[in-house]
Amino acid sequence: MKERKEILGIVGGMGPAATIQFMHLVVSLTPAKCDQDHIRMLVDMNPAIPDRTAAILGQGPSPVPELVKSAQLLEQAGATFLVFPCNTAHYFLPQVQPQISIPILNMIEETAAYIKEQGIKKIALLATDGTVQTGIYQQALTSRDLSCLVPDELAQKAVMKTIYDIKSGCELEVAKQTFAPAINWSKRQGAEAVIAGCTELSLILTADTYQGLKVIDAMKVVAGKVLERVLD
Amino acid sequence: MKERKEILGIVGGMGPAATIQFMHLVVSLTPAKCDQDHIRMLVDMNPAIPDRTAAILGQGPSPVPELVKSAQLLEQAGATFLVFPCNTAHYFLPQVQPQISIPILNMIEETAAYIKEQGIKKIALLATDGTVQTGIYQQALTSRDLSCLVPDELAQKAVMKTIYDIKSGCELEVAKQTFAPAINWSKRQGAEAVIAGCTELSLILTADTYQGLKVIDAMKVVAGKVLERVLD
Repeated sequence: MKERKEILGIVGGMGPAATIQFMHLVVSLTPAKCDQDHIRMLVDMNPAIPDRTAAILGQGPSPVPELVKSAQLLEQAGATFLVFPCNTAHYFLPQVQPQISIPILNMIEETAAYIKEQGIKKIALLATDGTVQTGIYQQALTSRDLSCLVPDELAQKAVMKTIYDIKSGCELEVAKQTFAPAINWSKRQGAEAVIAGCTELSLILTADTYQGLKVIDAMKVVAGKVLERVLD
Repeated sequence: MKERKEILGIVGGMGPAATIQFMHLVVSLTPAKCDQDHIRMLVDMNPAIPDRTAAILGQGPSPVPELVKSAQLLEQAGATFLVFPCNTAHYFLPQVQPQISIPILNMIEETAAYIKEQGIKKIALLATDGTVQTGIYQQALTSRDLSCLVPDELAQKAVMKTIYDIKSGCELEVAKQTFAPAINWSKRQGAEAVIAGCTELSLILTADTYQGLKVIDAMKVVAGKVLERVLD
């Protein structure tokens, strides 16, 4: 095994399936021929982190104290940088970063930078109500002179129903039909691409394009950035 | 979230896919309605652990020092018990346990105990050459007055080719054909059940029975034991 300086720390559990999917992405994107070619990861799957969306809507406790605890635990265990595989949690990261000495690889900022690099001008944000309402993607994109299309009520409802249905174990082919109004809306608005800004949507938007729209999967973007950082 | 005393530590990376599959099993078997219902897990995905089979065959360095490092790291981070999601690694655990103060939930012993509980008398071990050669399953079963059938040369070759093909991304339907001689051998020997003693085989042996044989998946058994231990 090559000695590598960087150790990825993952603040996980938001939800557990998203953490596992992120780990799977990192592992499957690693050009490895044997176990020893993979990168070192430390993971804290922490179910004590309160619901992020509820906190944003003022209906629950702040997740910040638990996010900080997990981040500090991983730093102490040897992690040299952190990823939080949860779009919504990124709203709270400005309060977490000052409490630790290692950097956070910000999924939202990395995704926005990637969209800029790809020369995409018009992109639609497909994510939970919580992520949309925080404006985190919109800010990251507008600060790069990019506009971000936010679904109208009907399209956003289709997105939320799709996410909810997939969480409940609905067949993907059925979920795709529920999802259709969001895709049709994106096309009507002239979007070139969509951001898969939620784990469940990544399960539908697996390919690089979907019905003629480029797919930008935030988890995949940040998994690629992790490997750029760690591998020689 | 309920306050729970037990925190699962996973010494992972042997290989990374097996670790992820084990985490997935624990998460999917947890009776959870929301993120906060899940159990706490700390994971060290450590690619510095040398190849276990090579070490057993005297062709490579011992994995013990790195296994101990990971185990100690997880103990220090707060884990209250450990799982090693790698059948072959269990050969080395008697050298790891004295170096830590928290217990190891032994996958081989738990699987043997489960087989005993199920009243299964005749079981075939389907695992890598390395796992078979160490005799760890055979010992755990014979110490419980159970006999363990070990594949003949042809059946063992079929097992190894199946594992290798799946690792290389072969279609499962094709792998099932390669696997057939091992299943046919198990039936001819009068086995009631087979031990899926390797992650890749778990991908074929997903159901509770396969062609009339009961399937005992070691990873699933230990995932169940983890939940028994942690949940109220």
